[in-house]
Amino acid sequence: MQSSDIITSRGNAHIKLALSVRKSARSRRENGLFFLEGARLCADAVSSGTAVLLCLYTEKAAEKYASLLLPLTEHAATCLCIDESLSGYLAETEHPQGVFCLCQARSTEVQIRADGRYIALSFVQNPDNLGAIARSAEAFGLDALILEGGCDPYNPKAQRAAMGSLLRLPILETEDLPALLARCRESGMQVWASTPQADALPVTQANRSGGIVCVVGNEGAGLRDAILQSCTRVTIPMRGRAESLNAAQASSVLMWEMVREVRT
Amino acid sequence: MQSSDIITSRGNAHIKLALSVRKSARSRRENGLFFLEGARLCADAVSSGTAVLLCLYTEKAAEKYASLLLPLTEHAATCLCIDESLSGYLAETEHPQGVFCLCQARSTEVQIRADGRYIALSFVQNPDNLGAIARSAEAFGLDALILEGGCDPYNPKAQRAAMGSLLRLPILETEDLPALLARCRESGMQVWASTPQADALPVTQANRSGGIVCVVGNEGAGLRDAILQSCTRVTIPMRGRAESLNAAQASSVLMWEMVREVRT
Repeated sequence: MQSSDIITSRGNAHIKLALSVRKSARSRRENGLFFLEGARLCADAVSSGTAVLLCLYTEKAAEKYASLLLPLTEHAATCLCIDESLSGYLAETEHPQGVFCLCQARSTEVQIRADGRYIALSFVQNPDNLGAIARSAEAFGLDALILEGGCDPYNPKAQRAAMGSLLRLPILETEDLPALLARCRESGMQVWASTPQADALPVTQANRSGGIVCVVGNEGAGLRDAILQSCTRVTIPMRGRAESLNAAQASSVLMWEMVREVRT
Repeated sequence: MQSSDIITSRGNAHIKLALSVRKSARSRRENGLFFLEGARLCADAVSSGTAVLLCLYTEKAAEKYASLLLPLTEHAATCLCIDESLSGYLAETEHPQGVFCLCQARSTEVQIRADGRYIALSFVQNPDNLGAIARSAEAFGLDALILEGGCDPYNPKAQRAAMGSLLRLPILETEDLPALLARCRESGMQVWASTPQADALPVTQANRSGGIVCVVGNEGAGLRDAILQSCTRVTIPMRGRAESLNAAQASSVLMWEMVREVRT
């Protein structure tokens, strides 16, 4: 590739679109696109069947990550070389690898199965938490991730923390979680609301046969009363002066308890 | 307080020391100090018996966080008012509360008890992981946190993620983890090495009676062979295409399994 083919301008339309999609949930929604950073994660997008519209990479990355870039250059609708300065401009990480993608948002239909296991996040804000929870959910074999508000699943930080799990795990986004939970109850599923309240049912005593949905709330505010009151309040027994667990840690222990008996 | 008492200069010796201790593990070690940000966390330092040498706060914070600042102004050796611009300069958070402390590093002697439960982190680098693990360790009632290299326990990000747990939990820093683990084995304790390797012992089948030390490795490289080979390799059974759990998620599930039978 000749140096004349290397994009150097922040004014380039592709660069402007990539940055807008990286930065703004609204731009992601409106364009139906999301932004990924990192050679491995971009290659994961291809192997998980995500449509890659644009791949941007530096000359250095083309050498260093040749084998990861190969499926990308084959599948991406457009591939463009960018200079190091643009790579730094696009990157969210401190030491960028120089590989970026714009992908098409997924439009999978997720059906809740009455015998399935689900984690539902209600207004979880922190992208690192969302990513870590998705990674655990996939590792524990949960059937899908249910999201009500909070961090959007295409947030680039969440995607990095998920190490590809957010590309593979079925995701159901809902604007009416209470109605969805009511339908789950009607179909005979256990519906748990996670809480640090000490008078809630210890998770080890909760009924874990059959289908389960476990709802986890916002990092600061927890779950709203309407949800707490209509669900089985479930807790992870705690000691010491810690008042609660981090949302991602609590979610992982609860998901582990959901599948523990089945799996071991 | 008159406005002439408000510090406004980045050249002020207190400000320079605070920033150096915030930024550099070496400065923390050399000065025997650490830096905290946030009204609640600074108040936690006082209530956990940490010596607070310097408290810095803005006029706005003095109003908004009056009740949290009260114990700080009583216990801190020096209290100084700073302007909003210095608060932004010192802060690591996007929306700083305007309360900062310099505290004396703890010098607690931690003795490993043969019937205790411990998590040992070997070169865990990410401060958010260290903080979340400490928070879970305290919540699950572990006896201490053992650290070999990696992120130092006084890292301000780790302190924030720990929500005060790193101020309260006994911490043992070691430069020779293999020797410490050998002593634990000799005293009859179970010594686990956490690994995603599928041929390791599922944690639910591991002996969980009596004392346990569980070692968790670096986020990218895992545990070195010398540790894997001398310990009981323990794993959290996984499904799907996830290759491993996040270090903090894995640690929380393993700590939970350590205390699960005892606690429920």
